[in-house]
Amino acid sequence: MPDSTPPDAPAPEEGTDASADAAPAASGISRRGLFGLAGAGVLGAGVGVAGGIAVDRFVLPASASAQENAAVYPFYAANQSGIVTPAQDRLHFASYDVASGVTRDDLIGLLKDWSAAAALMTAGDPVGTYGAVNGPYTAPPEDTGEALGLPASGLTITFGFGPTLFTTADGTDRFGIAAQRPEALVDLPHFPADMLQEAASGGDLCIQACSDDPQVAVHAIRNLSRIAFGRAAIRWSQLGFGRTSSTTTAQATPRNLFGFKDGTANIKAEESSVVDDQVWAHGDDGAAWMAGGSYLVARKIRMTIETWDRTSLKEQETIVGRTKGEGAPYSGGTEFSAPDFEATGQGGKPLIAADSHVRLAHPDQNSGAQLLRRGYNFVDGNDDLGHLNAGLFFIAYQRDPRTQFIPIQMNLAKSDAMNEYLRHVGSAIFAVPPGASNGGYVGETLFGA
Amino acid sequence: MPDSTPPDAPAPEEGTDASADAAPAASGISRRGLFGLAGAGVLGAGVGVAGGIAVDRFVLPASASAQENAAVYPFYAANQSGIVTPAQDRLHFASYDVASGVTRDDLIGLLKDWSAAAALMTAGDPVGTYGAVNGPYTAPPEDTGEALGLPASGLTITFGFGPTLFTTADGTDRFGIAAQRPEALVDLPHFPADMLQEAASGGDLCIQACSDDPQVAVHAIRNLSRIAFGRAAIRWSQLGFGRTSSTTTAQATPRNLFGFKDGTANIKAEESSVVDDQVWAHGDDGAAWMAGGSYLVARKIRMTIETWDRTSLKEQETIVGRTKGEGAPYSGGTEFSAPDFEATGQGGKPLIAADSHVRLAHPDQNSGAQLLRRGYNFVDGNDDLGHLNAGLFFIAYQRDPRTQFIPIQMNLAKSDAMNEYLRHVGSAIFAVPPGASNGGYVGETLFGA
Repeated sequence: MPDSTPPDAPAPEEGTDASADAAPAASGISRRGLFGLAGAGVLGAGVGVAGGIAVDRFVLPASASAQENAAVYPFYAANQSGIVTPAQDRLHFASYDVASGVTRDDLIGLLKDWSAAAALMTAGDPVGTYGAVNGPYTAPPEDTGEALGLPASGLTITFGFGPTLFTTADGTDRFGIAAQRPEALVDLPHFPADMLQEAASGGDLCIQACSDDPQVAVHAIRNLSRIAFGRAAIRWSQLGFGRTSSTTTAQATPRNLFGFKDGTANIKAEESSVVDDQVWAHGDDGAAWMAGGSYLVARKIRMTIETWDRTSLKEQETIVGRTKGEGAPYSGGTEFSAPDFEATGQGGKPLIAADSHVRLAHPDQNSGAQLLRRGYNFVDGNDDLGHLNAGLFFIAYQRDPRTQFIPIQMNLAKSDAMNEYLRHVGSAIFAVPPGASNGGYVGETLFGA
Repeated sequence: MPDSTPPDAPAPEEGTDASADAAPAASGISRRGLFGLAGAGVLGAGVGVAGGIAVDRFVLPASASAQENAAVYPFYAANQSGIVTPAQDRLHFASYDVASGVTRDDLIGLLKDWSAAAALMTAGDPVGTYGAVNGPYTAPPEDTGEALGLPASGLTITFGFGPTLFTTADGTDRFGIAAQRPEALVDLPHFPADMLQEAASGGDLCIQACSDDPQVAVHAIRNLSRIAFGRAAIRWSQLGFGRTSSTTTAQATPRNLFGFKDGTANIKAEESSVVDDQVWAHGDDGAAWMAGGSYLVARKIRMTIETWDRTSLKEQETIVGRTKGEGAPYSGGTEFSAPDFEATGQGGKPLIAADSHVRLAHPDQNSGAQLLRRGYNFVDGNDDLGHLNAGLFFIAYQRDPRTQFIPIQMNLAKSDAMNEYLRHVGSAIFAVPPGASNGGYVGETLFGA
């Protein structure tokens, strides 16, 4: 036997699994706590206290960027986190299909398991009652381990229910909830020029994992997928590396892969009456169980950036309707100036062109409808021509897609000058229920506590 | 005309392109400078000074994580940056094929253009003499713009030359450098169980862009690809989201997607004699032009993480030869304890198994050969089974692959117990020349200044 034993695992004894089961059962040790204990000598008071309680004392980040990734958002809350939460920098999104043979009770069980795991991970803890480094030594770890030592990093995990969850198959109501399908959870119509791929569209369930550390977001989707094994499997998934919208006034406006600021006029969390009116579903909207929830539309939009990059600065700005540097509307002012769609220039032409993106997407042109956008830039390798498979993974939350996303997108799809550089290849819609009650699960208002 | 004019662009005048050419010619304005000028009122002294000189005064980061991404590494240096540079958090790597018909002079021109652009971008500036928001208004912007406002974020851009650059085609020496091909730039042999895809292997040229901000790394590859238009095109490319190795003692060891610390025993920049002996090519190694350069081996290694995750903690640790939590060798101690390959447990069996990864990869088992590893975790969506396309994009630098990567990998490929969970699907080797002289270009020691 070796003289020194690693502090967090039993000394290995070849061929004696029984002894291995005597591993120290320090269950519940947190990612943060573990790292502080095992990683280096930067320890404050309370070293011996395991569990997820000592956030500040034990943090010793694995990278410079981790130092400020200490944000923790609550999982149990009236609304699910990841909607009005300040947009994190990175995304891992997955759409799932429920396996055949899964019953209503099985589905409820999955939602309970997912919620319990999400509560742990968003707090910066591993999933399960034992993690990657303790518990039964002869069983697979409940947590896969790649986020050990990393702080919560602002992780939010947001669950959604697709239209197909509410459908009947062969005359059978799949999960006994067909009558509860919200009218707002429509099947999205075909929009002009849609080039949708079945493999990148739809899904019974979705999970949006956002974090300031991509490893934390990937860890979340991976572990939730693992928990779903045999009950639901990933239908499609998407990594996003750069947020394209601000959701609070404290965030600077980031840029999309056209090089333009994106989301200047986005709904901000501070606009509480707008959020209430445009983002959250209300109990009297038609589906009482959705009160405090929202509707998520996801669109995978490939950008033909190589073509865009050969377009003049003037053409780019005319298409967007804003200047590229400052992001000011073409009617003048600075980034946050209101666009003046009536302003005209030489020859009486409107300064903000009739087919510009900013005009067609603006609430004034859409009966006041707004969206809370939360999209991310993506690059999925390259195609056979050597062009980057790049674009925008568009995510928008809203109270009712019938009066918000659908008419706005129909407006854009018909007329937007930007369409020449866009290909909508994926599409999905989900009802995002309200948050789970303390210790409860997402979906409890639909399925019962 | 609108009353107020955006500060960084001319007021638009429909139909009069001539006036647009009168845009303010504030050439060379930096990403940092621009953001400070245009983004908000946080301005120090020297507001009117355009150019990339006012690093500290103008920084107003676009996100929390950007606040500490101010690291700037020099492009003009004896060695290329991105090798012993502290491993940044994110990667965008691209392999290029030179287009047919491109001459030696064309290739030299490309390398000069690439080097000039890399010098600008690594300093936090846009590419070209004018950027996305100034310069001729009727021409495409020289910079695509999505990194405007973002700091340098530790960006390094590292160029390499593949074996095919030195080959003859139809009896013609493609670029007149066949005689200069270093003997160390071998064609990699077939390793047991290799499942290489042609579309993810090889290439005439490569660029490794590393940054703490993925948007900055993507911006670099995108703009360099654009500069190469008509001369070289992407053959394959890879995004990586999490570094898997430390390259300095100041960095904590990160974890790979098996959940284990990876790179504990990596060569560290501080080990100057090891770096000199194992990383940098020497002038008397056979190719004088490679003095101060290195050889890069890239391997795309898919991990079957779903299978791995069903394996017991004991089995995982036995395969790796280290504990999962602490990362200590299975012979005892803590993470940085030297593994004792002679130590035995019950029944005289070695504590560190004969087919464990740590044993087979260790310098003691490979005639002292080491690698400077700089790999990244990746997730490329999912497959048809709903499994994540996840793994390790392995990158290693070395003085001579014939005595370093090749024998080590042959050792691993034959015996490593981990192979059951690995699929090598991509492979490439590149000669990475020394750094460019001040104002010069990468490749000048090969092609002449």
